[in-house]
Amino acid sequence: MLKIQALEDLVTELARLPGVGPKSAERLAYHILRSSDTKAEALASAIMRVKSEVKECRKCFNYTVHDECYYCQASERTDHIICVVEEPSAIERIEQSRVFKGRYHVLHGAIAPLLGVTPQKLKIQPLVNRVKAGFEEGSKSPKIDEIIFALDADLEGDTTILYISEQLNSFPIKMSRLAQGIPIGSGMTYLDERTLGSALQNRVEIGSYSSFDRG
Amino acid sequence: MLKIQALEDLVTELARLPGVGPKSAERLAYHILRSSDTKAEALASAIMRVKSEVKECRKCFNYTVHDECYYCQASERTDHIICVVEEPSAIERIEQSRVFKGRYHVLHGAIAPLLGVTPQKLKIQPLVNRVKAGFEEGSKSPKIDEIIFALDADLEGDTTILYISEQLNSFPIKMSRLAQGIPIGSGMTYLDERTLGSALQNRVEIGSYSSFDRG
Repeated sequence: MLKIQALEDLVTELARLPGVGPKSAERLAYHILRSSDTKAEALASAIMRVKSEVKECRKCFNYTVHDECYYCQASERTDHIICVVEEPSAIERIEQSRVFKGRYHVLHGAIAPLLGVTPQKLKIQPLVNRVKAGFEEGSKSPKIDEIIFALDADLEGDTTILYISEQLNSFPIKMSRLAQGIPIGSGMTYLDERTLGSALQNRVEIGSYSSFDRG
Repeated sequence: MLKIQALEDLVTELARLPGVGPKSAERLAYHILRSSDTKAEALASAIMRVKSEVKECRKCFNYTVHDECYYCQASERTDHIICVVEEPSAIERIEQSRVFKGRYHVLHGAIAPLLGVTPQKLKIQPLVNRVKAGFEEGSKSPKIDEIIFALDADLEGDTTILYISEQLNSFPIKMSRLAQGIPIGSGMTYLDERTLGSALQNRVEIGSYSSFDRG
């Protein structure tokens, strides 16, 4: 009990954020209280601005302030490969690797029936439509050659890949998923057995290489 | 680079908070973006409200929405002992221990000349005035018997205690500080040598006890 309603409310709101426990919410609230009016206003207005300005790209559902997102607008990227991700934040990670130069599609989640996340709640149909449009007679939409699934390596991710690949199996497209294996820089000792098993099954011949341009 | 200014700005503002690194700022920003408008507004308005409503108690400089804070207003507390703390958040900790029933005084920091925190920047003079007022002829202000320093156990805390005790040494008051010793529930193994040294010097005879009422 902080005895001050406004402070308690702020602690409550901060504690709703992921990874922020009651103790650190309290620390953050006191920090905000101590900080200048300008700084507190900057934070509050940044929160409001992000909610009012940012919307979903009409093509790929990534976040954007325009009709289409940065990666859908970029003219130098290939239209023929789509990388499917769960969340827009994954796009940042992939871009940092500088390996992928195609387009994206954001599902905004993965199939999880127990949590009420059915395929209909995700941007799966728009993805199917995107692929379909490219194969229509006389279509101006780009023809998709490959779909890369860059989803979380868990049950929900696997289910989602299975579901979407079934939706798309009538189209002549290559579908792939991220390799599972030893994280670079990581030692054998700390590797769990499932990752190790997957790394063994997907072992790569020494001297060979793979690239996105092989297709 | 998130390619969206509003999102970048929010990440920047969140990363200014203590204990929030760039990665977790990004995670929080995406969480806020995904959350409902109502929830984002609740957070933003809680930030603004805490800044506009909360001010410092005119007596002890604790946070309050009134002229005087909860603990200065509470009639059942003794007026004769003041517990001096660095930050208002310390008051919560002390209250949780249920051991102290006097008044508080918040310095809003500790003396740190290298960081530019001089005694004049802290609420030290108002504390001296509070004590002084009680000893004035025919004064209605409460006479202070004891000052307890509940400051951080570091150089700044020690300096501050020394400075204030010199300011107050002309008054017939007892001054004390929190005991330093083994934290309850902690083992000997992990104790640093300074704490252990202090705990040894301040060893307590078995069977004896101390209480705030002994004075």
